[in-house]
Amino acid sequence: MAVNLLPPVAADLLPVAGVRLGSTAAGIRKADRLDLTLIELAAGSQVAGVFTQNRFCAAPVQLCRSHLAHSSACRALLINTGNANAGTGEAGLAAARVSCEAVAALLGCTPQEVLLFSTGVIMEPLPVERLIAGLPACHAALSEDGWFTAAQAIMTTDTLPKAISKRIVLPTGMVTITGIAKGAGMIRPNMATMLGFIACDAAIAPPLLGALTREVADASFNCISVDGDTSTNDSFILIASGVGKVSLADTASAGYGELRAALIEVARHLAQAIVRDGEGATKFIEIAVEGGRDRDECRAVGYAIAQSPLVKTAFFASDPNLGRILAAIGYAGIADLDVTGVRLWLGDTLVSENGGRAASYREEDGAAAMQPAEIRVRVDLGRGQEKAVVWTCDFSYDYVRINADYRS
Amino acid sequence: MAVNLLPPVAADLLPVAGVRLGSTAAGIRKADRLDLTLIELAAGSQVAGVFTQNRFCAAPVQLCRSHLAHSSACRALLINTGNANAGTGEAGLAAARVSCEAVAALLGCTPQEVLLFSTGVIMEPLPVERLIAGLPACHAALSEDGWFTAAQAIMTTDTLPKAISKRIVLPTGMVTITGIAKGAGMIRPNMATMLGFIACDAAIAPPLLGALTREVADASFNCISVDGDTSTNDSFILIASGVGKVSLADTASAGYGELRAALIEVARHLAQAIVRDGEGATKFIEIAVEGGRDRDECRAVGYAIAQSPLVKTAFFASDPNLGRILAAIGYAGIADLDVTGVRLWLGDTLVSENGGRAASYREEDGAAAMQPAEIRVRVDLGRGQEKAVVWTCDFSYDYVRINADYRS
Repeated sequence: MAVNLLPPVAADLLPVAGVRLGSTAAGIRKADRLDLTLIELAAGSQVAGVFTQNRFCAAPVQLCRSHLAHSSACRALLINTGNANAGTGEAGLAAARVSCEAVAALLGCTPQEVLLFSTGVIMEPLPVERLIAGLPACHAALSEDGWFTAAQAIMTTDTLPKAISKRIVLPTGMVTITGIAKGAGMIRPNMATMLGFIACDAAIAPPLLGALTREVADASFNCISVDGDTSTNDSFILIASGVGKVSLADTASAGYGELRAALIEVARHLAQAIVRDGEGATKFIEIAVEGGRDRDECRAVGYAIAQSPLVKTAFFASDPNLGRILAAIGYAGIADLDVTGVRLWLGDTLVSENGGRAASYREEDGAAAMQPAEIRVRVDLGRGQEKAVVWTCDFSYDYVRINADYRS
Repeated sequence: MAVNLLPPVAADLLPVAGVRLGSTAAGIRKADRLDLTLIELAAGSQVAGVFTQNRFCAAPVQLCRSHLAHSSACRALLINTGNANAGTGEAGLAAARVSCEAVAALLGCTPQEVLLFSTGVIMEPLPVERLIAGLPACHAALSEDGWFTAAQAIMTTDTLPKAISKRIVLPTGMVTITGIAKGAGMIRPNMATMLGFIACDAAIAPPLLGALTREVADASFNCISVDGDTSTNDSFILIASGVGKVSLADTASAGYGELRAALIEVARHLAQAIVRDGEGATKFIEIAVEGGRDRDECRAVGYAIAQSPLVKTAFFASDPNLGRILAAIGYAGIADLDVTGVRLWLGDTLVSENGGRAASYREEDGAAAMQPAEIRVRVDLGRGQEKAVVWTCDFSYDYVRINADYRS
């Protein structure tokens, strides 16, 4: 039961010139379930990515990093669900290499021009022969209209596919952007997200594309948490096919600001969709922290609140047990925080100031503010000008049920 | 449903000479429930304490710190449940001061010789008049045999009282130790625990007592987590009444090692009892991390595993989804961790090595190792000689139920 999230309408997803997608049910973990997606990019396409900081990062993440360090030119992305190919040691890396080689042979490119993404159970061997056996079906299905099916094919515990398109007109021409993402649990991206792929048909010079990718991730996927668990496989890829009319060399290029804003809008939609579809989520919560000395401390406070099981269960219960939020602010790691300067709002209701409950606060206002499916928590740390936002969801019986059942 | 934890037998709790306890039902939050405990100490008693590092620390914690900074001489401790007197600002501090003054007047000591402890809901005004009205009943009930009742009276969401005694014979005489503790949720002590009180009848010089308190806390209450939430009210107090025959001046004093070991044993029992009685707990889990460069990184890995909702729900389900443990090790913050050197055991079963699943590992062994109510996770980081241990419990439907219902 995702919070205020509708499935995308297939017809609303715009093809991106130079990008074709094909998916199939390769039986990687379960039969008759879409689990393998090939994305073919036109010659000349450039990509950039950000990846999990987890030290037990998956074999495909290691391979992507190595390929992208070599060159930003890319001709294909292959994505499988059902197996994370993480915690799989040398055998996992070998399986990832073989997969890239098979894609390269199929498309007539080099293995270095192929990127690989896996999501699913950790520490189980990847059934690479099933993956390779599924490639011809993906290839046969390749189509510029494949976005909706691909968004379905990359789902794991997601209840809904996540996808969005946007078209903007710049002085030099039109740019079409379409993105898809997956993720519902093990969500606490650190420099990246679960899996997110955004493509546009502009040509973007590689150094600019790399910087833009980090900026977009930082304003979207790096602001969310479902359960505080940073995955082994988080990957976010920004694709610039270059087939369209627009070309950007650097931040001074015409239309850069508009394109950046549009990409952030698409990425935020996808990141928030992951939270709205968070495992067992019944509420979508925005935590806006302001008045910090730097953005890091604002974000630390936001994440302390977002990841507190006590705060999350109180949201699930719609119980304005808001002292739990104060406790989380207090242990967020700001050693010299003066709590008398901290103010806390729930929606528009001032809850706490001067180190205690606000004189104007009435329990019934707090109770009313806890009712909606979308709630905004605002914290003013009262010690500076910086701010940050974190999006999260509540913690329900269903989170426990889903994660106690996930493998069985 | 505490995990392998029986209630203490009242007759097993040994009186500590110089320490009398009296409890009553003062109606602080609910009627007819023991919620106020007075501990009276003989003249000459010395105490030391460690307290929460939460910046939103409670008014009684602030007062305790101030009193102990002034002197380690102490004549009384007052403990209430039903209200944390945290997030209560200046009014909370005033209420705490008034409480100390009332105890001082009753016992004929100074307010500085009184320590105060509160636990319960955060950010609600302390009904100080009910607390003061309950003092005469506590005073009338004072008895050296009051430990068992006190252990009951300090409970909140605890399902069982937590108490233990130990008697040791040192070259210079016998020492009797009795301790009580409470805590079941909002448990991730940082330099302290929820509430723990351990008394002995030895005389211990204040500097030694202070160092001993920190050492004992570090080997017990600072090794546990139920939900990762560091409370606003964590306090651990070590009392040396000095009424017995033994006297210790410094670490070279006869019997120091034995006394230290006995105090750690008592504190570990109480700390583990808190985890065994963790909200909704069905399993008790010891996470032993070795092979680290320093103890801090071992502890960080232990806590990353202990606090991962995904690991905790897998334990609840008895599902050997052990890749989740690798993921937690990977995001614990050791930036230069070489995962190929990491080894993971569940009980005696080697699960992972060389960055992947151990060749000898069989799923049925993992499944068998997940069944017992007590499970030991062992991690060798393979990069040093230091180690640490963390005790935790699993994450069940009941945790959500308890914390979605706590105030209602």
